Amino acid sequence: MDDFWSGVGVDLHLEPDSADGRRVGLERALRDAVRDGRLAPGTRLPATRRLATDLGVSRGTAKAAYDQLVAEGYLTARQGSGTRVAALPPSQDSASPRGDAHARAPRLDLRPGSPDVGAFPAAAWLRALRRAIATAPSLAYDYGDPRGRIELRTALSGYLGRARGVLAPPERIVVTSGYVQGLALLTRVLGGAPVAMEDPGLPFHRDVVRHNGGTLLPAPVDGRGVRTDALGEAAAVVVTPAHQYPTGVTLHPERRRALTDWARMRGGLVVEDDYDGEFRYDRQPVGALQGMAPGQVVYLGTASKTLGPALRLGWMVLPPHLVDAVADAKLHSDHHTETIGQLALAELIDSHAYDRHVRACRLRYRRRRDQLLDRLGAHRGVRGIAAGLHALIDVPDEAGVLARAEAEGLAVGTLGTHWHAPGPGRPQGLVVGYGTPRERIYPEALDALAKVLGTGR
Amino acid sequence: MDDFWSGVGVDLHLEPDSADGRRVGLERALRDAVRDGRLAPGTRLPATRRLATDLGVSRGTAKAAYDQLVAEGYLTARQGSGTRVAALPPSQDSASPRGDAHARAPRLDLRPGSPDVGAFPAAAWLRALRRAIATAPSLAYDYGDPRGRIELRTALSGYLGRARGVLAPPERIVVTSGYVQGLALLTRVLGGAPVAMEDPGLPFHRDVVRHNGGTLLPAPVDGRGVRTDALGEAAAVVVTPAHQYPTGVTLHPERRRALTDWARMRGGLVVEDDYDGEFRYDRQPVGALQGMAPGQVVYLGTASKTLGPALRLGWMVLPPHLVDAVADAKLHSDHHTETIGQLALAELIDSHAYDRHVRACRLRYRRRRDQLLDRLGAHRGVRGIAAGLHALIDVPDEAGVLARAEAEGLAVGTLGTHWHAPGPGRPQGLVVGYGTPRERIYPEALDALAKVLGTGR
Repeated sequence: MDDFWSGVGVDLHLEPDSADGRRVGLERALRDAVRDGRLAPGTRLPATRRLATDLGVSRGTAKAAYDQLVAEGYLTARQGSGTRVAALPPSQDSASPRGDAHARAPRLDLRPGSPDVGAFPAAAWLRALRRAIATAPSLAYDYGDPRGRIELRTALSGYLGRARGVLAPPERIVVTSGYVQGLALLTRVLGGAPVAMEDPGLPFHRDVVRHNGGTLLPAPVDGRGVRTDALGEAAAVVVTPAHQYPTGVTLHPERRRALTDWARMRGGLVVEDDYDGEFRYDRQPVGALQGMAPGQVVYLGTASKTLGPALRLGWMVLPPHLVDAVADAKLHSDHHTETIGQLALAELIDSHAYDRHVRACRLRYRRRRDQLLDRLGAHRGVRGIAAGLHALIDVPDEAGVLARAEAEGLAVGTLGTHWHAPGPGRPQGLVVGYGTPRERIYPEALDALAKVLGTGR
Repeated sequence: MDDFWSGVGVDLHLEPDSADGRRVGLERALRDAVRDGRLAPGTRLPATRRLATDLGVSRGTAKAAYDQLVAEGYLTARQGSGTRVAALPPSQDSASPRGDAHARAPRLDLRPGSPDVGAFPAAAWLRALRRAIATAPSLAYDYGDPRGRIELRTALSGYLGRARGVLAPPERIVVTSGYVQGLALLTRVLGGAPVAMEDPGLPFHRDVVRHNGGTLLPAPVDGRGVRTDALGEAAAVVVTPAHQYPTGVTLHPERRRALTDWARMRGGLVVEDDYDGEFRYDRQPVGALQGMAPGQVVYLGTASKTLGPALRLGWMVLPPHLVDAVADAKLHSDHHTETIGQLALAELIDSHAYDRHVRACRLRYRRRRDQLLDRLGAHRGVRGIAAGLHALIDVPDEAGVLARAEAEGLAVGTLGTHWHAPGPGRPQGLVVGYGTPRERIYPEALDALAKVLGTGR
């Protein structure tokens, strides 16, 4: 055996008496070598004749092994260029924008988008699961209504009414597997119509609309929230009225009115992303826009910020004319959302454990917000702090600050990635997710941020 | 107040001192009347002038109440046709093909499609959930890999290899929220390309392909399974090789070879729906087609038949070149499948509780199959009984048998609904799901079936 083969680790002594065993052993050795990366993508393998000679197997065995691995997609064979290692199966993280986020997360993570998942109420959730399973009729384990379990829709109806001022009769609610699914279903129901999205806004949500066939229009945001005079030919506009992402602006009352007027006059649809509406610190909670115009607004809520993104539980409250179409899109996407989690959330809401948990989180995040302000001092431009889990901090030079942060092992978001069309002359800023770090590491993350910004006490 | 208003139940004595109170009371009364169905869709309401006179409120109050309910979508107002009750919000069951299936299920249900959900292993699932929550790191509650948890993909990799002969490295597995989602994602990735589907086959799955932009082609099925000489210009073909749905035919070895040859030669994709591959009674299990050509076959499996449809847990094993595209489609559909259920299923597989449960189910369903054959006698054309949860029973007159079944309170499926293009001259049959009824009611369901067929002992 020459170096090539010993490098690859081929060991043909596995089942020396059987031609089959040799072929299988050779296949396995090659497969493992490709998987482990010992054979890099594009590597040209020896011709079968040489392989057979080198390893003391028949040429038929060598050819059979190559053929099998071509069939499996590990190797490619093309006339003239021989047998090569195929492009690698994707690495664990390549498919997601953040991948399995924290597998490669920096130690000090102030990127926005996730709550403190260390605060997931595991014991309460397990209790709710147990009670859901104890009380569920066996028919609950069959296929169900694409709109979700009636128990959860009824619980949400009451909760959204009292907590967010949403007019949400259970028959207008569709339970989704998170916010993204709600946005995807709506985009498909709108069938390619132009969808205006806040600029700046979350790039991933723009991707979701594009990916599901929507045409994007930018809806500029100013100090009063989304500009309602700039909606152009949009059939729908997606907004974050309670706490604009990422600027943190609360939609001004005049703009709220203008938005619902636009919807009524133009027959447009307002899509209200109430991603962190539960977390308001300084004033009375701002009720959902939906309450002003339930026939024109689709309300989208989520358990991702209050409980945890892993649950993939969200909800849509729809104008009557959209319920059937959205339920139909849901049915043909995944039939319905997983049932036991729905029953557990209904339990949690009905027992008021959900409210208690949200209140406790609100206190914790408010304390973190206060610590952030305290640590950075009063002189900094820190925006959007009345609510939510993130703040926008003015900086003159995003790139420079980002580089300093990286050197400190600190990850933060920047405003720059949020524009529809990035370019020079745009305002610059850091988007700081103060909800994200585990509790014990938060002070250290703040220290690093203060150092990077050259500020603090 | 005249009869119209007392019929609607308007009670304006709620808050008689306040104009606001009257408006709110009127709104609520109207809203409730529409919701309850006391005001039917399309009903024309009195003009505001008459409303105001009848109820002793100002015309402004009457108009404000109508406007609000128009805004909420309960009423519609059009110039010339006055104010009318809008089309009703959909009733609870209207959105699903079977709706919340068993809410209106007949007592004796032999329709195919669901396992016996009374056999859901609730205690084992709860134990697995508890262990998953006890051992999950807090980062598991954050957003995750769109392909699913590595714990579950690793467990599935081993399970599918030993139980189904699937070559399934974890990096080629995408966990889905059930089979339907896998089919929907694939269809979108294929971007409108022609997809051949077995004829006869499940109509709902055709709907899923159509709904997600696919172009349908019929792939005729004969006594050896799908006809591989009739795939025409298909870019992909969806097949049920282990136990064709609904004919119950096992794909003949020659056809298996022809199918993978077609895929290799034409660059086509074979989509293997292994919906009940775990349940084979008479012979050695038929391994998955995927093992013969892992580079050409997408393998789709599900926990819907082994555990329960409510869990919405399925998996795809993909050729390398499709992994990124499918993971990307999944990401933009719902980010990823709910995490805790994934971890619980991994627990169940790793502890071999899943295998034990599948074995127990196989014994139970085999017993049911034997009871069916015994009850119907040997002289009937009963097909597809070597595997799965359903049988096809030849009948000369579907409609007549169906009418007799209905009279007995028995629901069964018919072959007629499964053709791409129904028409006269097609073979006729009953599709009998013997897995579906609760255990204690199964004998009674069989009695009814025997009576309807005029057969049995």
